[in-house]
Amino acid sequence: MTDRFTFDRLVGFTASILEAQGVEPAHAETCARRMVEADRRGRTGHGLIRLAAYSTRIRAGGYNLAPDIRTLHETPVSALVDGDNGLGQVVMTRAAELAIDKAATSGIGWVGTTNSNHAGAAGIYPAMALDHGLGAFYFAVANGNGMPPWGGIERLLGTNPIAFAMPAGHEVPFELDIATTVASHGTIKVTAQAGEPMPEGWVVDADGNPITDPNRADEGFLMPIGGYKGAGLNIMIGLLAGVMTGSAFGRDVVTFRTDHTTPTNTGQAMIAFRPDLFSPLEDYRNRVDAKLTELRTSRTLSGDPVRLPGERSRSLALASDQQGIEVPPALRATLADLAAELGVAPLA
Amino acid sequence: MTDRFTFDRLVGFTASILEAQGVEPAHAETCARRMVEADRRGRTGHGLIRLAAYSTRIRAGGYNLAPDIRTLHETPVSALVDGDNGLGQVVMTRAAELAIDKAATSGIGWVGTTNSNHAGAAGIYPAMALDHGLGAFYFAVANGNGMPPWGGIERLLGTNPIAFAMPAGHEVPFELDIATTVASHGTIKVTAQAGEPMPEGWVVDADGNPITDPNRADEGFLMPIGGYKGAGLNIMIGLLAGVMTGSAFGRDVVTFRTDHTTPTNTGQAMIAFRPDLFSPLEDYRNRVDAKLTELRTSRTLSGDPVRLPGERSRSLALASDQQGIEVPPALRATLADLAAELGVAPLA
Repeated sequence: MTDRFTFDRLVGFTASILEAQGVEPAHAETCARRMVEADRRGRTGHGLIRLAAYSTRIRAGGYNLAPDIRTLHETPVSALVDGDNGLGQVVMTRAAELAIDKAATSGIGWVGTTNSNHAGAAGIYPAMALDHGLGAFYFAVANGNGMPPWGGIERLLGTNPIAFAMPAGHEVPFELDIATTVASHGTIKVTAQAGEPMPEGWVVDADGNPITDPNRADEGFLMPIGGYKGAGLNIMIGLLAGVMTGSAFGRDVVTFRTDHTTPTNTGQAMIAFRPDLFSPLEDYRNRVDAKLTELRTSRTLSGDPVRLPGERSRSLALASDQQGIEVPPALRATLADLAAELGVAPLA
Repeated sequence: MTDRFTFDRLVGFTASILEAQGVEPAHAETCARRMVEADRRGRTGHGLIRLAAYSTRIRAGGYNLAPDIRTLHETPVSALVDGDNGLGQVVMTRAAELAIDKAATSGIGWVGTTNSNHAGAAGIYPAMALDHGLGAFYFAVANGNGMPPWGGIERLLGTNPIAFAMPAGHEVPFELDIATTVASHGTIKVTAQAGEPMPEGWVVDADGNPITDPNRADEGFLMPIGGYKGAGLNIMIGLLAGVMTGSAFGRDVVTFRTDHTTPTNTGQAMIAFRPDLFSPLEDYRNRVDAKLTELRTSRTLSGDPVRLPGERSRSLALASDQQGIEVPPALRATLADLAAELGVAPLA
């Protein structure tokens, strides 16, 4: 028995699990690809580890398994995708493909989603734009609130991520994928599992005192990056992904972790763009390569090169392609149980 | 003698100073309006306090006083503005107006600048979009480098700001204007002038130890907000404002504070957009008002309302309109000297 599996094997398994619960084959395949892509790139918190929770929600009736995903308010540069409470990865994939098409044709494509759901790793959607030679921004309202607005004590904001990608020539593309809180729920969970304390600055209580026991994190508030600055970015993302799209933000946000039935009305937004909006593509490529090389090879104390955003996920993806994607024992056991319950052939 | 002056009086004075040094009247007026608008909104670090430095640069021959500001690579949704080394506020105003026109017509308008210069407070350009009922992003490469890439020790990055605005209905519009470093040069200067130490986390030395003496800040490195996250946002901004536009970034950046003659080839970018891309305007307005109200009136420890990004600058602007804009004694003395040198009537 091996711990590592090919991308296609994991996609096939994941799609089978979804199909066995009533998800139509094309949607199951799309959702599986996005989930396994997260694992492939090392964003394990948004990969197969989520399959059990998605399955719980599917069986609780929290998803529409035959959604009528529709495009509304379309212009040559924009559209709103109504996900009809379908799987978030499926809805957001449709939105990303539409943004990419519009950007390829019109230079820019801005597509929002409404009635979507948790769509996994933020960075995988801008990465789809990279595959078409495009750059992209991605914004999402997180599926649970753990942070008050700056100066407040009421949890109305989530980890609202921003992701961004810019293509390069021969250099590794620039890819950013960050929560606007210092720590995410996933990071805190990993810390708790390791039996380690959280550093100060991740979570505070209502009086502003640090909480360092990760098992007590839910008693406190997540902290934004850079104080009021990150708190502002967090609301900016909420306005773009939630409010502009008519999706949930603030008090409307449904806690995905504990509420398995209420439609989440999740909102996301992607802005894809041609990197050659302002100059011939070859000129752009030469400039971006020169600058990424300059940053990467700039001086460090150790003499090792600087690691730019995107390099780690790229090298993990290459390793996954060569050695397979690792499925840790605990996750493997969970997936085996799920497969047994559903009469699906286990991973092997 | 009063310390406070009307907006128009300060614009007139500033324009006279610029004109007396050879700036053409229309450009002098535009630059003056943008500078005084910064003071009006309380962004005093980017207002009249900069007039002496701009004047030094003008007289050193660092600006082109008769620039041929041209639009290149234009599409219905995008354009590059070549500022021909003109005053940054003039170039960026042209770019903002073009982005606003394109957004009003096409839904989105993305305009970059090249051969521009320091353009003052980031937030004043998205604010121009608000005046037309539009939202906007603004990105700029700062005019000096004080920060290495994350993991490095070579100063290749500046305070690269992001600004963002979204219109509302009856609520105060959301306006964000932040450097992606914890502290800016301006904030450090104010701290030094007050004789106070800097908090830990603003500046570190090459070994990562905090520097708290603001007079020693130049020996250290500025810190990004949120560690590697803010460092990534900082590079994202540089790619958008500098690399895509063919402007300076990294080693090419000219230190505006000390080099008064080398063309800076500054780059900025603004993306203006219709907030009703995805729904009727009235629906958008109702949603954004409801959410901003919800955040603002959410619970606080003190019982005072939450202050959202944009509220402070809005209330300072209203106070400026009612009571005049304050010119502190030290700045007033500098401006009086400048006026005397140039034979311009002093502020009175």
